[in-house]
Amino acid sequence: MNEFEFIRRLRAQVESQGPSAQVVRGIGDDAAVIKPGDGRELVVTADLLIEDIDFRRATITPELLGHKALAVSLSDVAAMGSEPRWAMLSIGIPSDAWSVDFIDQLYEGAFKLANRYRIRLVGGDTSRAPDKIVLDSIVLGDCAAGRAVLRSGAKPGDFLYVTGELGGAAAGLRLLKRGAKLGAKRGNQSEAQAMEKVLQRQLSPEPRVGWGLVIGQEQLASAMIDISDGLSSDLLHLCEESHVGALIDAAKIPIDESVVALVGRRALDPLQLALHGGEDFELLFTVAPTKVSKLPKRVDGVPVTRIGTIEPAAKGIRVAEGSLIWELEAGGFQHFGGKNG
Amino acid sequence: MNEFEFIRRLRAQVESQGPSAQVVRGIGDDAAVIKPGDGRELVVTADLLIEDIDFRRATITPELLGHKALAVSLSDVAAMGSEPRWAMLSIGIPSDAWSVDFIDQLYEGAFKLANRYRIRLVGGDTSRAPDKIVLDSIVLGDCAAGRAVLRSGAKPGDFLYVTGELGGAAAGLRLLKRGAKLGAKRGNQSEAQAMEKVLQRQLSPEPRVGWGLVIGQEQLASAMIDISDGLSSDLLHLCEESHVGALIDAAKIPIDESVVALVGRRALDPLQLALHGGEDFELLFTVAPTKVSKLPKRVDGVPVTRIGTIEPAAKGIRVAEGSLIWELEAGGFQHFGGKNG
Repeated sequence: MNEFEFIRRLRAQVESQGPSAQVVRGIGDDAAVIKPGDGRELVVTADLLIEDIDFRRATITPELLGHKALAVSLSDVAAMGSEPRWAMLSIGIPSDAWSVDFIDQLYEGAFKLANRYRIRLVGGDTSRAPDKIVLDSIVLGDCAAGRAVLRSGAKPGDFLYVTGELGGAAAGLRLLKRGAKLGAKRGNQSEAQAMEKVLQRQLSPEPRVGWGLVIGQEQLASAMIDISDGLSSDLLHLCEESHVGALIDAAKIPIDESVVALVGRRALDPLQLALHGGEDFELLFTVAPTKVSKLPKRVDGVPVTRIGTIEPAAKGIRVAEGSLIWELEAGGFQHFGGKNG
Repeated sequence: MNEFEFIRRLRAQVESQGPSAQVVRGIGDDAAVIKPGDGRELVVTADLLIEDIDFRRATITPELLGHKALAVSLSDVAAMGSEPRWAMLSIGIPSDAWSVDFIDQLYEGAFKLANRYRIRLVGGDTSRAPDKIVLDSIVLGDCAAGRAVLRSGAKPGDFLYVTGELGGAAAGLRLLKRGAKLGAKRGNQSEAQAMEKVLQRQLSPEPRVGWGLVIGQEQLASAMIDISDGLSSDLLHLCEESHVGALIDAAKIPIDESVVALVGRRALDPLQLALHGGEDFELLFTVAPTKVSKLPKRVDGVPVTRIGTIEPAAKGIRVAEGSLIWELEAGGFQHFGGKNG
């Protein structure tokens, strides 16, 4: 398969999604042309995934890789309270991975997720790479003007909420590093289920698109961020941008039950993983007391939990654990670089 | 420098560009928020540059690399007849290149070019990379609705034009492969100038932003593409999308004078380089006979040359060289993957 065949295949696949009034021109020109509605603001994010830094070829399938690349960016758009609408995927592929099967499966993973949210793939770039697979996922979303939910609007007195459960993705990463594989046969059924669940959380994260939309459309949150680096790091980011402090209640943190189920036999500390483990891609947001009653209990089956309160900046960022109160330090996923947009 | 220091530095640099009414939120949130004007269409492109595929660390400076990454995407937006307005840069950097100097210089190159066209850097992603530098440059532009110039509008009878001169970037690449360096001392002054010029064309390409704007605003072209893969390949793309053929006059092709000046001593065939050499980042476009008189002679000092005519598809894509007429085959830069948007 050469570059032209590849682009032709990809274009046919995109066109099979049917026409879209807002895509004036998709794949096949120098750039894509899209038409946001009048009065809309545009939300744009890019996320780089590099082999042996962000994933290993031995532990993720091409399909899950395509899914994960897109999921990470969808999570960012959800964290802005916006609707993801268009995506581009830039991929660099080394010779030993360049095959019709590999590329088809990678795009299949991305398309499956994109179709679920009616997101159109409008472009990207494909390049040979010397040895490591590289993906840059770019997602564009939109929202009514002035409605994007930033990190910077939290006020003392607001309540702090998080969607879903925490710690699973980090537990999955630890198990992968110890040789666990998705879909492997295991003796004990409840243990097998728990392992499978945390491996899925790591390899096939579910962006909280539905929650992001509800929060944005109803303007329920004063500030929001997605938990990609870990609750501690991302709470710190939110508090920094909002110039506030926070007090969270350790007992309220929704620790992933599968992580708890795996404790004992393995060196996994559920609270540590929930506090500092990255890549859960849940949404962390703050809600003014007057709006708390409007918050739905679940969106797309995903619950939400109140885990603390926003305080003045001078109080710092603290955790109450029973009668103890201690200062929370960022201990999440600290890679070399970092997200800057 | 860790990720937070890095993002803080970058943000300060962006904020020193002054406020922008259309950037609601730049670097420092989950995603950027921008506000295109009502009735505008958005043009988006992404270009991946990977070390040892698209450039070599030994022959390009970090500043030129930052410039080139952005320039390649600006050229795509120009080729849509649109105004580039916002940019994101995703960079993966291996440990041995991770230094304040390297990153500052890389961004300096990108910022210098961005500032020239008042483009705002609104985000991106930064990641560690195992061994090779990776850059994905994302540029967003806009134009009045329905005004984007596609590859698909050329009609038989239209004239074919190209901006600037061709062949320089490919000659520069050949010289780099033979050990030439930018700024090296050379004996013969005219030869030194010619070498410097073609090396610059390869390492520091100038996107034809001004031409793209004029063509888009005045709706002068029926179809347009930028010459990234080479005149032959890109003419083929334009003709395929427009379902037309073309006849070009070899004698009219504006061959880079510096390439001609270097002929004789080196194995460089100027016409071959001009026809098939990639990365000149000039614009190739078609103009209906009724609009030819409106075409400016120069934009930003860059001339334009009529090199042929669009014909019915059945006639194929041909070159007239004196009394000979031969079929043009795509022979441009054929890397492994390819641009798909």
